Amino acid sequence: MHFHHHGYVTGDPRNQAPAGIGKDRPADLPDEMDVLIVGTGPAGMITAAQLSQYPEVHTRIIEQRPGRLEVGQADGIQARSVETFQAFGFADEITNEAYRITEMAFWKPNPDNPDHIVRTSRPLDDEHGISEFPHLIVNQARVLDYFNEFMGRSASRITPDYGVEFLDLKVTEDPDYPVEVTVRHHTGKYESRERIVRAKYVLGADGARSRVRRCIGRKLEGDTAKHAWGVMDVLAETDFPDIRLKCAIQSRSGGNILLIPREGGHLFRMYVDLGEVADDDGGKVRQTSLDAIIEKANSIIHPYTLEVRHVAWHSVYEVGHRVTDKFDDVPEDLTGERTPRVFIAGDACHTHSAKAGQGMNVSMQDGFNLGWKLGQVVTGRSPEALLSTYSEERQEVAQNLIDFDKEWSTLMAKKPEEMEDPSVLEDFYVKTFEFPAGFMTEYKPSVITGTAEHQELAEGWTVGKRFKSAEVSRVCDGNPLHLGHLATADGRWRIYAFADAPAAGEDSKLSRWAEWLKTAPESPVVRFTPADGDDDAIFDTKVIYQQKHPEVDISAVPEVFKPKVGPFRLTYYNDVFGIHPQTDIFEERGISRDGAVVVVRPDQYVAHVLPLTATAELAEFFNGIFLDPDRSA
Amino acid sequence: MHFHHHGYVTGDPRNQAPAGIGKDRPADLPDEMDVLIVGTGPAGMITAAQLSQYPEVHTRIIEQRPGRLEVGQADGIQARSVETFQAFGFADEITNEAYRITEMAFWKPNPDNPDHIVRTSRPLDDEHGISEFPHLIVNQARVLDYFNEFMGRSASRITPDYGVEFLDLKVTEDPDYPVEVTVRHHTGKYESRERIVRAKYVLGADGARSRVRRCIGRKLEGDTAKHAWGVMDVLAETDFPDIRLKCAIQSRSGGNILLIPREGGHLFRMYVDLGEVADDDGGKVRQTSLDAIIEKANSIIHPYTLEVRHVAWHSVYEVGHRVTDKFDDVPEDLTGERTPRVFIAGDACHTHSAKAGQGMNVSMQDGFNLGWKLGQVVTGRSPEALLSTYSEERQEVAQNLIDFDKEWSTLMAKKPEEMEDPSVLEDFYVKTFEFPAGFMTEYKPSVITGTAEHQELAEGWTVGKRFKSAEVSRVCDGNPLHLGHLATADGRWRIYAFADAPAAGEDSKLSRWAEWLKTAPESPVVRFTPADGDDDAIFDTKVIYQQKHPEVDISAVPEVFKPKVGPFRLTYYNDVFGIHPQTDIFEERGISRDGAVVVVRPDQYVAHVLPLTATAELAEFFNGIFLDPDRSA
Ligand SMILES: Cc1cc2nc3c(=O)[nH]c(=O)nc-3n(C[C@H](O)[C@H](O)[C@H](O)COP(=O)(O)OP(=O)(O)OC[C@H]3O[C@@H](n4cnc5c(N)ncnc54)[C@H](O)[C@@H]3O)c2cc1C
Ligand SMILES: Cc1cc2nc3c(=O)[nH]c(=O)nc-3n(C[C@H](O)[C@H](O)[C@H](O)COP(=O)(O)OP(=O)(O)OC[C@H]3O[C@@H](n4cnc5c(N)ncnc54)[C@H](O)[C@@H]3O)c2cc1C
Repeated sequence: MHFHHHGYVTGDPRNQAPAGIGKDRPADLPDEMDVLIVGTGPAGMITAAQLSQYPEVHTRIIEQRPGRLEVGQADGIQARSVETFQAFGFADEITNEAYRITEMAFWKPNPDNPDHIVRTSRPLDDEHGISEFPHLIVNQARVLDYFNEFMGRSASRITPDYGVEFLDLKVTEDPDYPVEVTVRHHTGKYESRERIVRAKYVLGADGARSRVRRCIGRKLEGDTAKHAWGVMDVLAETDFPDIRLKCAIQSRSGGNILLIPREGGHLFRMYVDLGEVADDDGGKVRQTSLDAIIEKANSIIHPYTLEVRHVAWHSVYEVGHRVTDKFDDVPEDLTGERTPRVFIAGDACHTHSAKAGQGMNVSMQDGFNLGWKLGQVVTGRSPEALLSTYSEERQEVAQNLIDFDKEWSTLMAKKPEEMEDPSVLEDFYVKTFEFPAGFMTEYKPSVITGTAEHQELAEGWTVGKRFKSAEVSRVCDGNPLHLGHLATADGRWRIYAFADAPAAGEDSKLSRWAEWLKTAPESPVVRFTPADGDDDAIFDTKVIYQQKHPEVDISAVPEVFKPKVGPFRLTYYNDVFGIHPQTDIFEERGISRDGAVVVVRPDQYVAHVLPLTATAELAEFFNGIFLDPDRSA
Repeated sequence: MHFHHHGYVTGDPRNQAPAGIGKDRPADLPDEMDVLIVGTGPAGMITAAQLSQYPEVHTRIIEQRPGRLEVGQADGIQARSVETFQAFGFADEITNEAYRITEMAFWKPNPDNPDHIVRTSRPLDDEHGISEFPHLIVNQARVLDYFNEFMGRSASRITPDYGVEFLDLKVTEDPDYPVEVTVRHHTGKYESRERIVRAKYVLGADGARSRVRRCIGRKLEGDTAKHAWGVMDVLAETDFPDIRLKCAIQSRSGGNILLIPREGGHLFRMYVDLGEVADDDGGKVRQTSLDAIIEKANSIIHPYTLEVRHVAWHSVYEVGHRVTDKFDDVPEDLTGERTPRVFIAGDACHTHSAKAGQGMNVSMQDGFNLGWKLGQVVTGRSPEALLSTYSEERQEVAQNLIDFDKEWSTLMAKKPEEMEDPSVLEDFYVKTFEFPAGFMTEYKPSVITGTAEHQELAEGWTVGKRFKSAEVSRVCDGNPLHLGHLATADGRWRIYAFADAPAAGEDSKLSRWAEWLKTAPESPVVRFTPADGDDDAIFDTKVIYQQKHPEVDISAVPEVFKPKVGPFRLTYYNDVFGIHPQTDIFEERGISRDGAVVVVRPDQYVAHVLPLTATAELAEFFNGIFLDPDRSA
């Protein structure tokens, strides 16, 4: 966070000064807006939160419910999501209130006495240290609250428009606000009225029964077969010893439970498997009573017992493995020719079992992927072509998720005696560890993702995968810091320059590259940074030297790493780093001693790895992503 | 935090359900109250925050200003304070917005060219790892905000009464509300009126010019000589390379500066030494202009220059080294006979230079010391004698602080050529590292602090010093945790039972001790826990086994470590620990393999170390601190 550079800010520095639409935001849903998001689930909220960092964009988010979600739905937060929360500034807060998963237990019928279950293993949840962030469990409602706070404090001052139901949309030829949306207001000034409003872009984040999806003619496809689970969030007394551990429990009968301890030290969730839903079920499974679920749970955990004392929430959750073929309104054959105007995200495009705890997480990554693209395009910084990459990138992720989830669900549903190898479940769990943590996503080369041509210069950062943070030391104040944690969700691109061996002040590849970036007419920083803003308004450029921080002379560091910011044109010294006293980032991430340039997208994915000499390639890469700013103003 | 155990809490779990006075808190200052605090500085706010955890106590905090502090005053937060914030739940949040000190630089005249300053050393700020918490710099106003949020979310729903000025008090013979206080209201219902209100206890946390102090006839004593500093919080451009490091800068002329970088990446504070204030100064030094201060700063940092572009705050801070002889209204010769009714804390009882960054910190520890004692006494849990320990304990700390500060200030004010050894300043800084971090406090044996008789059973925890946390693993969920961080500022005493070698379930000293604690009529848990509350309402009892957590069978752990809580009488499993996979707490803190009982006060000081066999001693210790609860209700 940098603050106070416009003068002293009294109060919480997370409260941004209102700007753009935030200065005079209409209280009611207006007739026209730039972006209209339908649904305040995880997908919609993160998109709105990201767009709140673009106060020039008028974003609205409507929700048919009268207010915030209060209870229920998903609760699994993978490390990738916590990493994302860090960028939105609330990773610590939510971690402090959540339950943290560090191990998982597997229970099976006791071979000697198969009517009794017995613990067979207890692997670590993140054995490989895939992330410095924890794996958490906390109610979805709290995640939404934190995004809500974030956007409320933003310069745009976004608050959801509750009690507004999306009914229909059509895409018109209107040059300014082509998407015509019909809504019904359930409260407020327009109570009980249907209205037509217009937007430049619409996002349907309206869940599994998405009407936006229907309006653009997309269909969830895949297995028609559904699986049902009795889910309950309860307070109970039990003699089951692992009641505060995440457990997969299989009984002799084939019944199985996924047990998820919850925040606060007492509550827990049980998913009790109700099996495949028969084609002719006709809603029967959904009638399964709470008592029946509790009874089934008791029979599965035999010889232990469960005495439920309070039920906070319960539901029968019925779901298939399905995905839509495309996440926007442009037909396959017109992709690249027409600009998408309507998008869908989250459960609106993919549904799957709750078993792998993916629902909320993948939905947020959808929104995180789309948010900045919309921000860039609506502000005129980037060409509309950027928007086609959303469906391209996220549809594949969803497809992989469905495949993974099917395999996992099938395994979990198997009776123990049907398994060739009794440890097949644990093995699968351990083998695919990257997946449930959210780190398997790898975007293909595209306008925003380079090729792997120079991958060997930074082996630890696979182009297309998320930027895994590592520790460095800040030169100006000696603070040991996680480099990645400085990348907040502000919509900026990151350019990390890893120096070659010479020290600051000496002639080097780094110093020549820095000079180019600062002065060359074709440098992206020179071309795309508006003349009247902060030097780092568009690109967050940081340098990491091979020396320890006290050996770096800050006065000798090239100017491009010491941007001038704010109305007083103050020098910002916080972008210059040396290696951490204990962990050398060059070693940790396999960075070449000849230096490297690592480009990271606003949503934290590695976009490119280039040598310090590849200035033309860097310029060309950004030429595809940015438009020259209007210097006439 | 445990929550959801009274049923599901939607929303922020830090919002406690209103209870006691919080259910129906009068908006205006009432005629009668239990505790009246004067002043919303750090001393007053922490006291109110602590008392907010006693909703049976009606606490009010008045402030003559119309609203919150906005800018200025102190900014140094030692690790001990951050440790304290952790107990109040906001250490992470404030750390995220603060500047973090990891190193300090010393600048001196260049021996070869004494008109130029040069960096002579750059030691680490916490070389010894005295705390796992950072040393921070952030405006005092933000600290106050966080306490304000804490008390506002508490069951008591305390908010300060702004615009109310304390005028006078007298202690009467009234059996219920003996302190009669005259206030003037500057706003609200009683605007412009003088009123008399009554309280059981009054705390004067009204700063260096305390009127409460005057009313009880205490005087600040010590040096009459004052020292003056020009202080400014500024935005500036400079070529001084360590502008983002804490620096002590001495010039040839003997002028000196303490430079403190501030939160947000740009702002910094400079203390420019204006020297001893002459006896006949008559307020002249206070007239020193901002321009004069900036000019002086420029001359000290020569050959570097400073171009100030914006001044957020500035002041001439004039202060002596003074302390009152006692911190309450009971004359020395009546101590122990009469109950103190009026207390003073913070700057009201001690003033000293800003150099060692102690002001706000020591003031908070005053309040943290007093808060729980008032809470215990007003609720009838503890005898009034507890209150006499406040002045006993804190006066000595203040005296030590004044002595330390004098030495430090004298050293800093010396001209370089006057020092026998040029590194005397750094040496002093490094040698006394415990002091500025806030960890030198060591309370003497008293009714609430035991003797060192069994100190060898837990060598790392000196009786009377603060409980330094160490890592353990929680058995029920395998979470690696800092034991000390679980001790929140809820007013409870902690009893940590470190087991002898046998495992849970086997006969051992620990199991016998646990049985005693659960069932013996003289056990403090049995005697002092109200019949109708949670089993852990008064004592937070935790067990730490010598085994790793997966080797501890939670079913076999004694019942006293698995308290029943809440309306559903749920078992709380979170009080049982094994050793951490990497760091064995028994090794780290020198705990006997025969086990030990470590008792920790609500304000985090080690109160006692006892063998597991010393049940009588434990019972006796608590007999002096607790009263039998009224079981008639
Ligand atoms: C009842 C329920 C129980 C669930 N239980 C689990 C579980 O136990 N475990 C698990 O992992 N996942 C569960 N899920 C799924 C998980 O919550 C989703 O994967 C996740 O919320 C997806 O996020 P989303 O933003 O795509 O959609 P959602 O969170 O479903 O959000 C969609 C939002 O759009 C709103 N909306 C819908 N239609 C309209 C309209 N026409 N106009 C305006 N607003 C509209 C909805 O009210 C909702 O707020 C559950 C989902 C539901 C609905
Ligand atoms: C102007 C100023 C500048 C300072 N600058 C520095 C600095 O640069 N560095 C540093 O380390 N320390 C500085 N300090 C000292 C530091 O702020 C204190 O050590 C710290 O605040 C002590 O906390 P406290 O709670 O005891 O008192 P304070 O923070 O002084 O709080 C006392 C409160 O009581 C209120 N009050 C006073 N009289 C009455 C009354 N009659 N009725 C009602 N309310 C009343 C005051 O308005 C104030 O809010 C400064 C203090 C002041 C006042």
